[in-house]
Amino acid sequence: MIAPDDRGFTLGDGLFETLLAQDGDLEAWTAHIDRLGAGCRALGLPAPDPELVRRESVRALQAAGLEDARAAVRITWTAGPGGRGLDRPASPTPRLVVTAAPVVAPAGPARLITSTVRRPEMSLTARHKTLSSLDAVMARREAIAAGADEAVMLNSQGNLACAAAANLFWLEDGILCTPSLDCGVLAGTVRARIMAQDGLAVREVVATAEALRGARAIFLTNSLIGVRDVVELDGRVLPQQVGQSILATLRGRM
Amino acid sequence: MIAPDDRGFTLGDGLFETLLAQDGDLEAWTAHIDRLGAGCRALGLPAPDPELVRRESVRALQAAGLEDARAAVRITWTAGPGGRGLDRPASPTPRLVVTAAPVVAPAGPARLITSTVRRPEMSLTARHKTLSSLDAVMARREAIAAGADEAVMLNSQGNLACAAAANLFWLEDGILCTPSLDCGVLAGTVRARIMAQDGLAVREVVATAEALRGARAIFLTNSLIGVRDVVELDGRVLPQQVGQSILATLRGRM
Repeated sequence: MIAPDDRGFTLGDGLFETLLAQDGDLEAWTAHIDRLGAGCRALGLPAPDPELVRRESVRALQAAGLEDARAAVRITWTAGPGGRGLDRPASPTPRLVVTAAPVVAPAGPARLITSTVRRPEMSLTARHKTLSSLDAVMARREAIAAGADEAVMLNSQGNLACAAAANLFWLEDGILCTPSLDCGVLAGTVRARIMAQDGLAVREVVATAEALRGARAIFLTNSLIGVRDVVELDGRVLPQQVGQSILATLRGRM
Repeated sequence: MIAPDDRGFTLGDGLFETLLAQDGDLEAWTAHIDRLGAGCRALGLPAPDPELVRRESVRALQAAGLEDARAAVRITWTAGPGGRGLDRPASPTPRLVVTAAPVVAPAGPARLITSTVRRPEMSLTARHKTLSSLDAVMARREAIAAGADEAVMLNSQGNLACAAAANLFWLEDGILCTPSLDCGVLAGTVRARIMAQDGLAVREVVATAEALRGARAIFLTNSLIGVRDVVELDGRVLPQQVGQSILATLRGRM
């Protein structure tokens, strides 16, 4: 249980990571711990001891009876207890909360809408995985209400950023594109693997929603879904699905 | 205590209000409950029963031994329990948490800096009092680190919005000005009282930081401090302090 004065609860002052555990293996562990560390530096919080986080992750999987399953481990790192108001204590004592839950692969390819909820690229909340995630919640809510699965978010300039809880890739004239991180994009771990993959040339771009309207294929990536094809954007059916070949390339090399 | 799956904790999915209690009187009660209701509509959450909130506020004051004191009552209304991920349950069951804490009047006039942290006017987090308050936390942190008390926040366009936890007024050529709500401003209850006050002509403006550099006087308002003069902005000493006369006007009429 969380104390009601925890700054994660009162102000969204903290960070989280969600990672995939398969039969007790914590996937892309270093990438997640590194990203959490980068978030701590940006927020001015001390970073957790990686070994402690790993132990608590294993413990959470065991407590949920998921050590032999496909599971999502959520690591929450808050600014800890705080008094009234915005000011942190002089020396914050962050709190670690780790939970595990079963995760099922999505039923099929995703239907997307372009959300009216913007991603504020000038805010830490757009670039780090913070507990202040209301914009993403509202974007996803809009997608679900429209009968879609996920929302494409534009930033304040009208440029593509990412989906509510996934990175965004598309195929344009045979070239794989993804929005540049400074468009207000979370630095996804699967995104990074794709960028680093020999045999996959990816162009980081600053592009408007128009780019997706001309795309032959779109796919989403995140730690839990890996790669997920998009079948439809704003009612337009995509002509091509390339997710499986991307996955094969990733698997072939890793 | 808060369950670790509360969406207020995991995602900043919820709202809060902070109001001043004096000897058990809840100041500007209707204004706060109305603002909470407006926030609920914007976030798509059911609103709480005002009578329940009032009872819990009185109970929190009593539990803290503050029923005869000057105290801050914080009302937190979260989207309630949620599973993994961004999606709310089909019918959210919000959670109410009310706490009370002593509040001391600020020692004197405030020193401000202009923060590098922007207020994303396109986001619900800038216009409502949400649990996703990291931007305000970071702006205040920057002010404290610079030896100041509070931070002036510009929006993504470079226009003045408000302070991290207060509304912003200034005197320019004898005219009282405050940023227009659509600049990414929280609709403060004291701000509203000043706007509605006979005898105080206030101009809502879209203005850059330049406007403050030419101001003769600046003051801050919020529920707890009421009106607080600013003595210094970015190292420049303000020639005039008008807070007391604003307060006298408000008190004379209310």
